[in-house]
Amino acid sequence: MLTYNSFASPMLTDYYQLTMAYSYWRNKIHDKPAVFDLFFRENPFLGEFAIFAGLEEVLSFLERYRFEDEHIDYLCSKMNIRDEDFFKWLAGVDASKVRLYAIDEGTISFPNIPLIRVEGPLAVCQLLESPLLNLVNFPSLVATNASRFRIAAGREKRLIEFGLRRAQGIDGAVSASRYSYIGGFESTSNVLAGMLFGIPVAGTHAHSYVQAFKGPGDISNPMICGPDGRQSNLLEISMEIRKELNFENTNLGELSAFVAYALSYPDSFLALVDTYDTLRSGIPNFLCVALALIKLGFKPIGIRIDSGDLAHLSKTARKMFVDTSLFYEIDLSFLKIVASNNINEEVLYSLNSQGHQIDIFGIGTHLVTCQAQPALGGVYKLVEADGQPRIKISQDLGKVTIPGRKDVYRIYGREGYPVLDLMVLTGDAPPEKGEKVMCRHPFNEIKRAVVVPERVEPLTRLYWDGRRVKEKRSCHEIREFVLKQLSGMRSDHLRALNPTPYKISVTRNLYGFIHDLWAAEAPVTELG
Amino acid sequence: MLTYNSFASPMLTDYYQLTMAYSYWRNKIHDKPAVFDLFFRENPFLGEFAIFAGLEEVLSFLERYRFEDEHIDYLCSKMNIRDEDFFKWLAGVDASKVRLYAIDEGTISFPNIPLIRVEGPLAVCQLLESPLLNLVNFPSLVATNASRFRIAAGREKRLIEFGLRRAQGIDGAVSASRYSYIGGFESTSNVLAGMLFGIPVAGTHAHSYVQAFKGPGDISNPMICGPDGRQSNLLEISMEIRKELNFENTNLGELSAFVAYALSYPDSFLALVDTYDTLRSGIPNFLCVALALIKLGFKPIGIRIDSGDLAHLSKTARKMFVDTSLFYEIDLSFLKIVASNNINEEVLYSLNSQGHQIDIFGIGTHLVTCQAQPALGGVYKLVEADGQPRIKISQDLGKVTIPGRKDVYRIYGREGYPVLDLMVLTGDAPPEKGEKVMCRHPFNEIKRAVVVPERVEPLTRLYWDGRRVKEKRSCHEIREFVLKQLSGMRSDHLRALNPTPYKISVTRNLYGFIHDLWAAEAPVTELG
Repeated sequence: MLTYNSFASPMLTDYYQLTMAYSYWRNKIHDKPAVFDLFFRENPFLGEFAIFAGLEEVLSFLERYRFEDEHIDYLCSKMNIRDEDFFKWLAGVDASKVRLYAIDEGTISFPNIPLIRVEGPLAVCQLLESPLLNLVNFPSLVATNASRFRIAAGREKRLIEFGLRRAQGIDGAVSASRYSYIGGFESTSNVLAGMLFGIPVAGTHAHSYVQAFKGPGDISNPMICGPDGRQSNLLEISMEIRKELNFENTNLGELSAFVAYALSYPDSFLALVDTYDTLRSGIPNFLCVALALIKLGFKPIGIRIDSGDLAHLSKTARKMFVDTSLFYEIDLSFLKIVASNNINEEVLYSLNSQGHQIDIFGIGTHLVTCQAQPALGGVYKLVEADGQPRIKISQDLGKVTIPGRKDVYRIYGREGYPVLDLMVLTGDAPPEKGEKVMCRHPFNEIKRAVVVPERVEPLTRLYWDGRRVKEKRSCHEIREFVLKQLSGMRSDHLRALNPTPYKISVTRNLYGFIHDLWAAEAPVTELG
Repeated sequence: MLTYNSFASPMLTDYYQLTMAYSYWRNKIHDKPAVFDLFFRENPFLGEFAIFAGLEEVLSFLERYRFEDEHIDYLCSKMNIRDEDFFKWLAGVDASKVRLYAIDEGTISFPNIPLIRVEGPLAVCQLLESPLLNLVNFPSLVATNASRFRIAAGREKRLIEFGLRRAQGIDGAVSASRYSYIGGFESTSNVLAGMLFGIPVAGTHAHSYVQAFKGPGDISNPMICGPDGRQSNLLEISMEIRKELNFENTNLGELSAFVAYALSYPDSFLALVDTYDTLRSGIPNFLCVALALIKLGFKPIGIRIDSGDLAHLSKTARKMFVDTSLFYEIDLSFLKIVASNNINEEVLYSLNSQGHQIDIFGIGTHLVTCQAQPALGGVYKLVEADGQPRIKISQDLGKVTIPGRKDVYRIYGREGYPVLDLMVLTGDAPPEKGEKVMCRHPFNEIKRAVVVPERVEPLTRLYWDGRRVKEKRSCHEIREFVLKQLSGMRSDHLRALNPTPYKISVTRNLYGFIHDLWAAEAPVTELG
């Protein structure tokens, strides 16, 4: 079975990349050296940070980057080009002449910082634009979204990604599972993602399971073998407890479903309790079966609530657990409450303020489709061609690109937090620990700051030099890296409401370089 | 090369489907007959309709529905089940005992109408829930979104899907291309989607192409062979026209890029004109090269504008074309104006109200990520188990399911428009042309209507009976079907602002059936 999406081929590109490639080829500039930066211009979700993700997929894509015969045949038939030699050239294209620099996958990142820098023959780098953007934009968006949910829920809660059914396409789902995990979730319901990436999978049962049981007659065999090796009748014991606790008005189909489920998973019994009536049927039925399991020596997990007022229901459920534990004089504090149903960042903050009793959140639609902002506007811009820097100017200041080959350094202050990212022209002296450096806003003349770094971390690394030159990193490693960084950032940059912007700057030399080029290229506006 | 996504395997499911399957199997109810309905509860985008899509992918998924050895090995290692026989059973599962009824792909559809009805062994139908929802939700959402853009732009405009770089994952992009086409777009920039589904591909060049040219020196050979077989120097002729028209302040790198592009595509020259300055450099440069091409006997296509005020720029561009055509006394009315840059439904309506001069829209992010609502809430609910109808009740009226096997009929009125959809219990007499029928709101006792159908169209058809029992339909056929239906609906149901709801109803018999079951299952709420 393929561990990558079979659609990730060189054909996954915009048609104009191919028409441009032909025109470069025809004008014999296709092999001239070019440098492209991949970056985003604005942080997503009205926040002040993003998590860079997708790099491992980019590298695996480069490893397989070759047009197949049928691709060439298709392009031949569509492109209306008589030059057969172009297609011969195209059939020989691969990523062996490309170098790719990047910041590590999982790095907390900011606007205008090159996440990836691609160097190589102009036409090949051009062809890579669309797939690389596709392979970075959504992963980074989801990882960022997941990290925001993690921050909102708090470090001690467990978060499960549940989004398969509502995701944008098959791969929208698989990517969302992978990058939610990287962004700080614990597990996914998506079995394929579990298998492909080694992510823990989680899940219990649905409403339809409960509905499928009409009554005890649907349980084929109520006997269960306890940890002590003795056979017991789980249904009978549950029914006795039901009587003892005066829960005799609960839905019997639901109770039977719970018993049947507990018979299948005595070590990990977790019941969905809102099929008929959460407080008057679901939780009482759960308690009957859970207490029966405890009596036999098993340890049930808890309940899942999928509708209604999650704060109120979770608090009432906890109270019912406490009351029952007092009644039987046993400890039930280990029972977990899972909540799902349309949870987003605001819901998490609202639940927090209400003192909810939820231990685990199952989050789907809002997480995986990034409802608050469903696209990250990452771009891929030419910054050098044939050895000369290029600038893309625009009437919109936010859309001006920073020309030239640049490396990024993260500078840490005395308190151990990152204080700013500094872009330095490749080849210029990097900032040094303890040495004062002037940092300038790339576009705004007024904004300048002097900093004496306590520590300097070079972020830009060579990942591909005709072939992969760094070890593969697993989802687990990247996830750990993300979580470590999140706890190492000043929390005011990460908070949801009015976060403090993190400073992005350029050296004095790079500033001059940008502005000289800008002045040379921009026409003076004539009004009227 | 695979024509389907390699991730579309039985493992593309939620883990709880597998835990439920085991529990059904262990309780020996896995083979009991079950019926599930797939439907949505609310129209997307604050509209009053949706386009049902994804059926062909569902059928192709069923054809390949089999767990592979490595899937079974993975599940064995994860599921903590000692019953080896369950995995033997699972390894033998396929869709050969499943029947699938559906409305035709591309049908305009409405809340609560079963889009798909799945019948078969309980455990198998259960396993299909997550993948079927994934394969229907996003396709239907994108097709609906595309049809709304089509309605907003007007039938005579051309629409190109441009969303690859911002889509949610690889397949988010490929699916968006496919279903935007089905929803009424003309073409896509996505080459892979073009190849896989036969969708026309479109595209020209990017800003980086223009930036890659510093001046005439980057053109390797300015000579071009005209339709008459004579060689001419395109650069020289363009430069002469530039002088004639007093356009000598335009950016020379841009002019060179346009000449180079025209040399590559003399029959289909379309220039992106906003790299430096749309009105003072881009359009003048385009005109120089376009007029040179015309002089040599070619027919250029036009310009693309990718930033700025699209209404103002398109009107000014048109005026410049008209002025030039008067100056040279030639017809330039065939020149097309393509616009892109963050276009959504509202932008289209706003452009309409300003009398824009755009012929072709390139639409990306908002279309493919469905920014206005990035998920369709399609659900898959058990409506019959072991021959008995099942109802999922809920305190939220909108979440009650309609139990039992149902067929859907579309009823047309005297003016030839559909007036309502009627659900009938399978086996009950269908509505007949000219015969009065009582139609009831499924949940609201008060809402009733009598209708005499002018025409009755049965919508529910058998598509899968252990194997595909209907011919494959191409994207082109489905697209034609969508466009035909859109023009056959009363426009007030389709309009963007305050559209009229379309009536969804049930027969008197089905109404009674729902409400009897509801009363039997629902507990009477106790307050206090």
